[in-house]
Amino acid sequence: MKLDETDALNRLAVHGHGVLSTVHTERGVDSVPVVYAVTDGFIGIPIDRVKPKSTSRLQRQRNLEADPRATLLIEHWDRDDWSELWWVRAELRYETGAGRETEEALVSELAAAFDQYRGRPFAGLLVLQIMAVTSWSATAD
Amino acid sequence: MKLDETDALNRLAVHGHGVLSTVHTERGVDSVPVVYAVTDGFIGIPIDRVKPKSTSRLQRQRNLEADPRATLLIEHWDRDDWSELWWVRAELRYETGAGRETEEALVSELAAAFDQYRGRPFAGLLVLQIMAVTSWSATAD
Repeated sequence: MKLDETDALNRLAVHGHGVLSTVHTERGVDSVPVVYAVTDGFIGIPIDRVKPKSTSRLQRQRNLEADPRATLLIEHWDRDDWSELWWVRAELRYETGAGRETEEALVSELAAAFDQYRGRPFAGLLVLQIMAVTSWSATAD
Repeated sequence: MKLDETDALNRLAVHGHGVLSTVHTERGVDSVPVVYAVTDGFIGIPIDRVKPKSTSRLQRQRNLEADPRATLLIEHWDRDDWSELWWVRAELRYETGAGRETEEALVSELAAAFDQYRGRPFAGLLVLQIMAVTSWSATAD
């Protein structure tokens, strides 16, 4: 069953962690776990210094510069009880001109949601606009 | 840091749950949570009757028929302790001729791993070949 759109957007706003998938010219798709914050229809994903780096860390950014389409999937997983499963998928578009206010709001949200970012600036912030949401839930609420 | 390939493949073999991403002609990418089993370099994803259906349920299959490239991302997430984070991403190719033995082995693995499938046949099985794995871990083991 689908969740109603308000419910889906609310779950997206509070969940804070999901899988970002972008278009990769050779592999077709690239996926990477991310933390994120939501404000005013935008999603902010930190490019951070907290988690140790690997060389392919910014492949997501190169992908988005070549093709701005992306999806973020969040879900509730429970190996034993499948009656509680749900997911929300946000269709996103990479946005380089979201504006300073939106960026600042996203940075504040991230610092409020994750202790790991408190007092530590990110190396950068990916900003993506939410174009649509799709959802599924095993049970109607 | 990368995990060594054997370690990454072992984690993939036992994890059983991840996010499958496929190429969608309009949206660029599609992502959906899946359960899966691994045998002999192949991944089997049930098309099942256990979880309630939604109309878009088989979009993944239509995507794979149009473009056989896919990725499966598995991860360990811990909101509080980022020193324990890791993920493994398998680059996959949709395979319609994997052979009856491989399919049967995958079905057995799924029934063994998930009580929900015990004694209940699936509606079908998506079989994908593992082409490569990429991984990341916050700490070296």
